[in-house]
Amino acid sequence: MQMSNRITGFQCSPIRRLVPFSRLAEEKGIHVIHLNIGQPDIKTPREAIEAIRGYDKDIIEYGISEGEVFLRRSLVGYYKKYGLSVNEEDILITTGGSEAIQFVLMTLCDPFDEFIIPEPFYTNVSTFANIAMVTLRPVTSSSDDNFVLPSIDAFEKCINKKTMGILLCSPNNPTGHVYTREELRALLELCRRHDIFLVVDEVYREFCYDGKHFTSVLSFPEYQDRVICIDSFSKRFSMCGARVGAIVSRNRDVIDSAMKLAQARLCPPAVEQVAAAAALTAPDEYVENVRAEYERRRNVLIHHMQRIPGVRCSLPKGAFYFVVDLPVDDAEKFAIFMLRDFTYDGCTVMIAPAEGFYVTPGLGHNQARIAYVLKESELIKAAKCLEEGLKAYRRDVMKV
Amino acid sequence: MQMSNRITGFQCSPIRRLVPFSRLAEEKGIHVIHLNIGQPDIKTPREAIEAIRGYDKDIIEYGISEGEVFLRRSLVGYYKKYGLSVNEEDILITTGGSEAIQFVLMTLCDPFDEFIIPEPFYTNVSTFANIAMVTLRPVTSSSDDNFVLPSIDAFEKCINKKTMGILLCSPNNPTGHVYTREELRALLELCRRHDIFLVVDEVYREFCYDGKHFTSVLSFPEYQDRVICIDSFSKRFSMCGARVGAIVSRNRDVIDSAMKLAQARLCPPAVEQVAAAAALTAPDEYVENVRAEYERRRNVLIHHMQRIPGVRCSLPKGAFYFVVDLPVDDAEKFAIFMLRDFTYDGCTVMIAPAEGFYVTPGLGHNQARIAYVLKESELIKAAKCLEEGLKAYRRDVMKV
Repeated sequence: MQMSNRITGFQCSPIRRLVPFSRLAEEKGIHVIHLNIGQPDIKTPREAIEAIRGYDKDIIEYGISEGEVFLRRSLVGYYKKYGLSVNEEDILITTGGSEAIQFVLMTLCDPFDEFIIPEPFYTNVSTFANIAMVTLRPVTSSSDDNFVLPSIDAFEKCINKKTMGILLCSPNNPTGHVYTREELRALLELCRRHDIFLVVDEVYREFCYDGKHFTSVLSFPEYQDRVICIDSFSKRFSMCGARVGAIVSRNRDVIDSAMKLAQARLCPPAVEQVAAAAALTAPDEYVENVRAEYERRRNVLIHHMQRIPGVRCSLPKGAFYFVVDLPVDDAEKFAIFMLRDFTYDGCTVMIAPAEGFYVTPGLGHNQARIAYVLKESELIKAAKCLEEGLKAYRRDVMKV
Repeated sequence: MQMSNRITGFQCSPIRRLVPFSRLAEEKGIHVIHLNIGQPDIKTPREAIEAIRGYDKDIIEYGISEGEVFLRRSLVGYYKKYGLSVNEEDILITTGGSEAIQFVLMTLCDPFDEFIIPEPFYTNVSTFANIAMVTLRPVTSSSDDNFVLPSIDAFEKCINKKTMGILLCSPNNPTGHVYTREELRALLELCRRHDIFLVVDEVYREFCYDGKHFTSVLSFPEYQDRVICIDSFSKRFSMCGARVGAIVSRNRDVIDSAMKLAQARLCPPAVEQVAAAAALTAPDEYVENVRAEYERRRNVLIHHMQRIPGVRCSLPKGAFYFVVDLPVDDAEKFAIFMLRDFTYDGCTVMIAPAEGFYVTPGLGHNQARIAYVLKESELIKAAKCLEEGLKAYRRDVMKV
């Protein structure tokens, strides 16, 4: 009665190991400030909520596997606003961006095929690769140079006969890096030379700061056969629970092949597709206001955290995370200490130890990913609490 | 730029090959009566629709990966009504029964491990097995004896070191067979002897006819370590588009392991979980009325189809499908003929050729699966149309 090796072999990510400690702290009445997850406290567009409340069907029927026509048409209009020309056949609606990544890996890779990915990266990609039995080959980006794209050479060295593509996230979770047009073009040229795919997760597309310009991988028509974009409504419209995402590609083989997986699971959730289409009718100010709000939150939290002795923050240009070097021996031990042994003013802080964002063993050991999705007053409280927690941990645990 | 072998190797099921023909017919203004799919025209419980319309959150937040506590608690109560004692930790909410089957296969099997399944079976299981790279080993049940369970010997002959379990569906899609307590006990005893799992898809639990009693695999506490139940709200509450299902098992390893897959995809759809919990508050008469309605529809359609010369119907005791032997050379060719070349009184009928429900090559060649989810007047029209279509096909195409 053993479980499969692929399951028992899963590394439980450090964040998950922390969950019981966080639940215990909350049960004790401690106010846990969650800097560990990207669950925004920003409201979903009124249009989406009203569409749910106005749901006018009396049977929640199966939809079509590729996603409702009304939703794909609305997305065509959305991309057009960004100067991206795709049509409705280029779009496959998925049950969240999570399903989109899984479909792409399984569509392009057989077991033991490889994908190249800059590390640190979104930790669940490891599980998706595990499920698909795809080997992730990491190219390490470093906090020393603010996590810019590693050299093209470093990518090229990883390419072998089993390599099917490169997977990026831009703006990046967890580093906040936004890939430039030049970086993307250089990678696309590399992909062309080796006849592989470039897959870019662009779910944080709108969240770029300091006037930084976002470049979509869909804006290179000359490479369109090898381009796949992963998208999602979750972050853009603060509707993470709705589970509506998409695969966008002008390569018809990719969409047709992913459709075989889509047909087996029948359809994406019906009511939430209605909500997603309605979210796209929200005025442009909605997303711009959210963007501006995150930029303010980023500024506040970075400002307060940079003042903590021994702490070094990367400077995120996008998304709503950054990676921080902490003056501790082990970020996971410190995270547990914060939840189990420490409070300041009735509060504590939960952080995401960064080890789970790396493939290379040992990397990220003293790093954490910080999400700045909460309101400013909470972030200021969290920074103070972290500062005091670091003092206490270094004094009582590290004895320095 | 090739797709993976696992994708290109997918057999496109005959039903999917028919879809373009059906769309063309509909575009020509022909009324296509769909006996090919299980999309009921019965209303979702008012309670579920009202819960959607009363959605009171202003942020659609991530839920917890195992599914909302309120929903799992409601399910505990639902199972209790059937005398089945499970608690909320035994339940993992999934994005439809589809995800539940995939999670179970991946949790129990590594690539090239095997599952035994009576054929004909729900065709998408083939794709799920393909994704998980699990080999399905079929045990053939036959229309000659109304698709009863094949002998335990036939199952035992298929067991080898790679066998991880047996997968049933009861009441059965596509045959309508309802497994008896004795059949289940015999299989469980076989599973115990060989230390493998019994997985039963019970999504049609309530739909048993002629006073036939349903036995759940969850009602054998003495075997509970090797029992996994697949469940879904789709059919029971006519909410197929809601994508809410469940894995139920008292084996904690199974639930904990499947949780690793669940955590990676974050959570099931939020709004539809609210609708699902509300559906469980519908009065018992809702499901009883639906059951009685399907029983009437079955009686009507079987009555009319049995009178068609050369047609032989299995006698379904549950679910809302049956398998029919047709007096044709090739059920798929006949299905295409019906959609492309035939109308009767402005109508035609779409059927599901049964070949996709078998693993063994050649089986089901002259069979179709018939769903009786439409109202009686449509079913009577469909039977007449099929009768005339068979005459025309045999005369014009088979030249008999």
